[in-house]
Amino acid sequence: MCGAIGIIGGVGPYAGLDLNKKIFDNMQTNGTDQDYLDVYLISRSSDITDRTKYLKHEEAKNPAEGLFRSILKLEDAGATVMGIPCNTAHSMSIYNRVKELMALAGCQGKLLHIVEETHKYLEENHSSIKKIGLLGTLGTYETKLYENYFNEKEVFELMTPNEEGKNRCHNAIYDLEYGVKAYSSPVTQKAKDAFIAEIESFEKKGVEAVILGCTEIPLAFENMDKLGNVILIDPTDILARALIKNVDETHLKAK
Amino acid sequence: MCGAIGIIGGVGPYAGLDLNKKIFDNMQTNGTDQDYLDVYLISRSSDITDRTKYLKHEEAKNPAEGLFRSILKLEDAGATVMGIPCNTAHSMSIYNRVKELMALAGCQGKLLHIVEETHKYLEENHSSIKKIGLLGTLGTYETKLYENYFNEKEVFELMTPNEEGKNRCHNAIYDLEYGVKAYSSPVTQKAKDAFIAEIESFEKKGVEAVILGCTEIPLAFENMDKLGNVILIDPTDILARALIKNVDETHLKAK
Repeated sequence: MCGAIGIIGGVGPYAGLDLNKKIFDNMQTNGTDQDYLDVYLISRSSDITDRTKYLKHEEAKNPAEGLFRSILKLEDAGATVMGIPCNTAHSMSIYNRVKELMALAGCQGKLLHIVEETHKYLEENHSSIKKIGLLGTLGTYETKLYENYFNEKEVFELMTPNEEGKNRCHNAIYDLEYGVKAYSSPVTQKAKDAFIAEIESFEKKGVEAVILGCTEIPLAFENMDKLGNVILIDPTDILARALIKNVDETHLKAK
Repeated sequence: MCGAIGIIGGVGPYAGLDLNKKIFDNMQTNGTDQDYLDVYLISRSSDITDRTKYLKHEEAKNPAEGLFRSILKLEDAGATVMGIPCNTAHSMSIYNRVKELMALAGCQGKLLHIVEETHKYLEENHSSIKKIGLLGTLGTYETKLYENYFNEKEVFELMTPNEEGKNRCHNAIYDLEYGVKAYSSPVTQKAKDAFIAEIESFEKKGVEAVILGCTEIPLAFENMDKLGNVILIDPTDILARALIKNVDETHLKAK
């Protein structure tokens, strides 16, 4: 065994399961249980403050502290490479603090960054694409998590919907009557239509790939790699593949 | 935090996820991530030998050793009550050895037994029932895992299908053309029909409840508590609820 994958779960609990499932789905094995790589999922929600509230200054304690304590537990268990299945937790003031605490404590494990891995994946697999669209929550748009990283790299032009479109997309995730957080199995047609409308609107502007930048959105497009001609990009799936690759590339299933 | 739930995963990897999901599904919260109980899922498949092969003497090393090492890791992380999402791992020669090793090492954590919890649930919730049917793999039938326990208690009469029915049920799980292990999302109509035929045949013999004694079978009956008048019993769901109850009963969702 060359190492093990650690998942800092609980942010939220189901997003941890989703990343874990995608890790197993992307794992190449000989068909026996024994051939799977070791995966540790630590869900300590009560110890990790709300990411959005912290960014909005409604919560004083940085969620980085609880995330760091989960990392210590994962390292103790034997994890060598880790990921956080929460886009908001990758905002600079949270993620960078986690990395600082890891350095102070002398952690040996590697913590991947979901946006960095998504960008790397796009460079390696879709380098000819120019314009990429971003779907997400208002939180993801406001923190400019993807925009800052993509703009700095200057490889792709990252596009976001207009204000109305951002709200439509956010509501398709959060609305209590039809949003994916309330109705995920199956996703309502209204929520699905909202995402499709934004993707089609992106396509008219020359966008060739769209990042589904919230763990809930891929649920509306299960087993779909494309919508029309637009390539659908799932950052959780990319993070899952990057985690496997970091532990043992021979266990990465071909796409 | 009054304790934490530990899952000895990897037997198989997806069964660990299934138990974890059922734990979250049965957890009563105030709607925030922070209100979830802590759950640790340790998937160390490579360290745990095949349960069926061990029972058939095709494998010398007792899987109990690897299961025990996962328990040590879970206890280190803080787990106080633990479960194994694999029916076969509860066979006497495996499960009792795990308990022995735990006693020798002075483990403080509590390990639940999936069959014991299922029996307890039936006594508490369906005490008026006399005959209960069992669906499972040939392994489950051959080790008499449920039969021995139920017969010893003498509360319910546990019935199994005839040889032909056992094979039909086993094939509906394992067949590469239509079995649930190969096609789970969605389950094929042929596999579903095989389970339904056995349940209907049980009903004719006066059976009022059927134990879906293999983690794959509940996938054919999602969101169904009954088939006709027969109550469907999912041991993984019962184990999930027992784990929550052992940590903090106020977090158990009402059924």
